[in-house]
Amino acid sequence: MTGSEIERLIQLLAKLPGLGPRSARRAALHLIKRRETLLEPLAAALSEAGRTIHPCSRCANLDTRDPCAVCADPRREAGVLCVVEEVADLWALERAAAFRGRYHVLGGTLSALDGVGPDQLNIPKLLQRVKEESIKEVILATNATVDGQTTAHYIAERLAPLGVAVSRLAHGVPIGGELDHLDDGTLAAALKARRPA
Amino acid sequence: MTGSEIERLIQLLAKLPGLGPRSARRAALHLIKRRETLLEPLAAALSEAGRTIHPCSRCANLDTRDPCAVCADPRREAGVLCVVEEVADLWALERAAAFRGRYHVLGGTLSALDGVGPDQLNIPKLLQRVKEESIKEVILATNATVDGQTTAHYIAERLAPLGVAVSRLAHGVPIGGELDHLDDGTLAAALKARRPA
Repeated sequence: MTGSEIERLIQLLAKLPGLGPRSARRAALHLIKRRETLLEPLAAALSEAGRTIHPCSRCANLDTRDPCAVCADPRREAGVLCVVEEVADLWALERAAAFRGRYHVLGGTLSALDGVGPDQLNIPKLLQRVKEESIKEVILATNATVDGQTTAHYIAERLAPLGVAVSRLAHGVPIGGELDHLDDGTLAAALKARRPA
Repeated sequence: MTGSEIERLIQLLAKLPGLGPRSARRAALHLIKRRETLLEPLAAALSEAGRTIHPCSRCANLDTRDPCAVCADPRREAGVLCVVEEVADLWALERAAAFRGRYHVLGGTLSALDGVGPDQLNIPKLLQRVKEESIKEVILATNATVDGQTTAHYIAERLAPLGVAVSRLAHGVPIGGELDHLDDGTLAAALKARRPA
């Protein structure tokens, strides 16, 4: 029915997040139908990305340069570090364009269940950077999940003796969010953190 | 923020069916994190597929061989052709393993709106095959959509003078389907085509 080359392509595509076996088949056919405009450029882009993109040795962001574009940018505030779980979170913050300091990517969260301790994450390097780069403030921007908050709590404790200011992202009502659709925890947090109008 | 190599990879991934801009970003990070196990094998599989997989010159199925494995298989019934819109439909029928004849892939449906006429589809080749390959029956397995049924109707008319038997897939209740969840059209078709118990 199908050549083993197509089967292999489908199997690999099905490993991408968001693609199941059925959508991987659709994607494979879509690619083969668009050989010049999509399949070949994608193969080239993958090879190129695999060859050139590496984690930044300072902050673990992904880039073709080392240090990465953010670490190397002299216009960025050197004294403020924003700690995120993954590169995707760094991208999200950069899209928001509201932060002008530098980043530190942990590469995950602490998780007793999955056997992830501080040394499996990029935490020792964070403590080293805070000492060596005369950091004034560390913003803990881990996710608002149990693991994310546990990780932030652990890092805050480790940073306490170093005399650096440690802050966290605010909780509250999302911009454009309707109260009726918010969960109780967010509503309670927004109420508790209310500000004078 | 991100190197142009990553941006390019994300843009190409976002062109796959089922992946939007957000899931393309997730997929790109997923790939870069799994360089040896996923990114490089996928790049190789894409190159290989692009180099080796071509439409069968007889039925337009996709394969590394020409004629394709189905057309070349001597155990398949030579006198019965199943006409499908796309290669994905051929794959679906092969998975069902209920058809032992050969196929003919149209490459789409007739569509006045999109300017797709019989010559843009694989229809002239179908008529030629019916004449030359001593075909006894043509099963029209286009989708049960307006365009699919229009196309089937057109092909049936073109085949009529050739004296070949022409059939269509039955409509009815899907196996495992609940009447309460079926649309009216399917229920009506199932009732009309009822059989003695």
